[in-house]
Amino acid sequence: MDHAIALTPFLLAFACALLGAKLFGEAAERFGQPSVLGELLAGVLLGPSVLGLVPLSAGILLVAEIGVILALFEVGLDTEVAKLLQVGGPALAVALGGMILPFASGYLVTRALGHDTLASIFVGAALTATSIGITARVLSELHSLDTREGRIILGAAVVDDVLGLVILAVVGQIAETGSVELSSVARSMALAVGFLAVAIALGIPVSRSLIGFVGRANVRGVLVAVSVAFALLLAVAAHAAGSAEIVGGFAAGLVLARTNRRHDIDEALRPIVDVFAPVFFVSVGAQVDVALLNPLPQANRTALLLALGLTIVGFLGKFAAGFLAWGPARRAFIGAGMVPRGEVGLIFASLGRATGALDQRVFVAVVVAVFATTFLAPPLLKSLKPKAG
Amino acid sequence: MDHAIALTPFLLAFACALLGAKLFGEAAERFGQPSVLGELLAGVLLGPSVLGLVPLSAGILLVAEIGVILALFEVGLDTEVAKLLQVGGPALAVALGGMILPFASGYLVTRALGHDTLASIFVGAALTATSIGITARVLSELHSLDTREGRIILGAAVVDDVLGLVILAVVGQIAETGSVELSSVARSMALAVGFLAVAIALGIPVSRSLIGFVGRANVRGVLVAVSVAFALLLAVAAHAAGSAEIVGGFAAGLVLARTNRRHDIDEALRPIVDVFAPVFFVSVGAQVDVALLNPLPQANRTALLLALGLTIVGFLGKFAAGFLAWGPARRAFIGAGMVPRGEVGLIFASLGRATGALDQRVFVAVVVAVFATTFLAPPLLKSLKPKAG
Repeated sequence: MDHAIALTPFLLAFACALLGAKLFGEAAERFGQPSVLGELLAGVLLGPSVLGLVPLSAGILLVAEIGVILALFEVGLDTEVAKLLQVGGPALAVALGGMILPFASGYLVTRALGHDTLASIFVGAALTATSIGITARVLSELHSLDTREGRIILGAAVVDDVLGLVILAVVGQIAETGSVELSSVARSMALAVGFLAVAIALGIPVSRSLIGFVGRANVRGVLVAVSVAFALLLAVAAHAAGSAEIVGGFAAGLVLARTNRRHDIDEALRPIVDVFAPVFFVSVGAQVDVALLNPLPQANRTALLLALGLTIVGFLGKFAAGFLAWGPARRAFIGAGMVPRGEVGLIFASLGRATGALDQRVFVAVVVAVFATTFLAPPLLKSLKPKAG
Repeated sequence: MDHAIALTPFLLAFACALLGAKLFGEAAERFGQPSVLGELLAGVLLGPSVLGLVPLSAGILLVAEIGVILALFEVGLDTEVAKLLQVGGPALAVALGGMILPFASGYLVTRALGHDTLASIFVGAALTATSIGITARVLSELHSLDTREGRIILGAAVVDDVLGLVILAVVGQIAETGSVELSSVARSMALAVGFLAVAIALGIPVSRSLIGFVGRANVRGVLVAVSVAFALLLAVAAHAAGSAEIVGGFAAGLVLARTNRRHDIDEALRPIVDVFAPVFFVSVGAQVDVALLNPLPQANRTALLLALGLTIVGFLGKFAAGFLAWGPARRAFIGAGMVPRGEVGLIFASLGRATGALDQRVFVAVVVAVFATTFLAPPLLKSLKPKAG
């Protein structure tokens, strides 16, 4: 049952998030950094652990979700399916390598520091998922979406996001029952992987009829309203298939990119994304609890040591996976593009804590490592950007 | 305390609201009616009392609020303060007449049908407030915002909205204590009336600095994000001063209309309003419970009789008030523009039921009358539109 949301505190937090995002985004850019880094830092400062101006309230999280779904919708609109499929092989290799390497090394580091098998599995799994939201935003800022490197990263991040949730289901099952039923894993994998193909195959004729209706309509704003509704419906369908909602938003963009109104939709979507997506990046930053970074308490020190180890292997695992790509491409850039973790990593950590698989210290270490990779990636990508891009 | 909102049901409802609004809006236009009438009807059909596809959930109501605040922001952007002040006299006369006439006649009708004094005061008060959201939308569709009639209606609706909440405070006090403290009424009236003047006086220099910052910034989307944040902050300030949030959105538009970026803001705001405002109009329609319109149960019949009486006097009171305007203007159009009730009328009715001042039958009658005037106004305005507008 939903509870009514107090309107004015929400509006105030929304306004603070927007102003903070733009102020810090601008400052980041003046320091030669991608503005998304500034938006993340604005979130840390405005979030509950420092100023408390942007709480992680139901309203803010809802607007953040709308923002990230529409941001991925916009990325999809700027992506050509055919070109994405051309790099399918290298993208798959990067995605799989980028899941296996961090999983294995995260597991080993955690075991080596004396934690049990279940905790180590959770930690390894939490390091597998690249944050498609952060990665796509940085690529867009660097004008690298429409390059071979950009497409490999994007394709790999989508595969990652889809498989990440399958792994989440597997790990959840292990935590609950101590074992895994392979048939259910295969089923949820087939469902998640099949979703994109089916969504695109069915979406193309459906979107043609929608655009046809739009073309005959006279009322104001029908193109943008119907396009957004289409993206929201594919987000719901993606969730029903076991993927993340943002994968549905991305698929909707891929589909509508193949219509003759692509440019008009893109233009109308832009200001909407400008207003709603910053709330997502600020909300990610706001989830950082700066008190955990204080090295004085003994408990924090052991957690920070584990966090440091996880950040290093989490970074190296994804970075190395970039070198699995073949063909002409700057492989270090691809690896860097896979580094940021995000939402899914945090979901793993929360699930691990809720089921008791992770104690408080390990939970903190995973959260710190997830954020460290997220904040590391934008400056790294900027410095590694291929000149030709 | 906010509770997390289930994401996928919300996204589904949002998508249904958008598609329904555009489909029915288009149909309304083909029948020669303003499309907002179609959006309201889509709400009735999709709402909880018929199909249940758009529930009045916390998420939908939040998005609806964002939508109506930004819609009024857009209306403010298209309004010149100087021209609005030129019609200040007639607007004030129309507003005051349009509050006194429906209050008195609503009170008398309710008394005449045998209800007590307190109930009759509540009913009269519920008929005083014009829905600025509905009215502004119809004027915009008819391209009548920038006419003398349009400005008188808009000015009167703003006065109405401000005074309506003062009356709400008074009536609430009567229901609670049985009497009214005049000093507190005077204070809240001064606060509410003063808000617009202060907001505009202070807003103009503040908005100049904001626009200055925006002009020096390089990051994407800073103009639209900062403008929306400004509107949200004025909405919060309006609420703090005892007015409705939408009055703050309108004031923000008036202020930013005086900057040299007015046109750019207007353009960027348009698709945002196109996506969020329909959710507001659909949510208004979704509040209609069609079961109450069934004349077969005896209880409904007496309620519908009272509703009919209230609709007639509610209509005539506002319509007659239009003729209090002076100068060259089509007075019948002005009167029709004041007819739609909305949010505030429903708030009166809910408060009356909650305090026990209104029994279920009278509550239903007020709600039906509020909606009847809302659905009546768009076609009436369209048919009365002055040729020169």
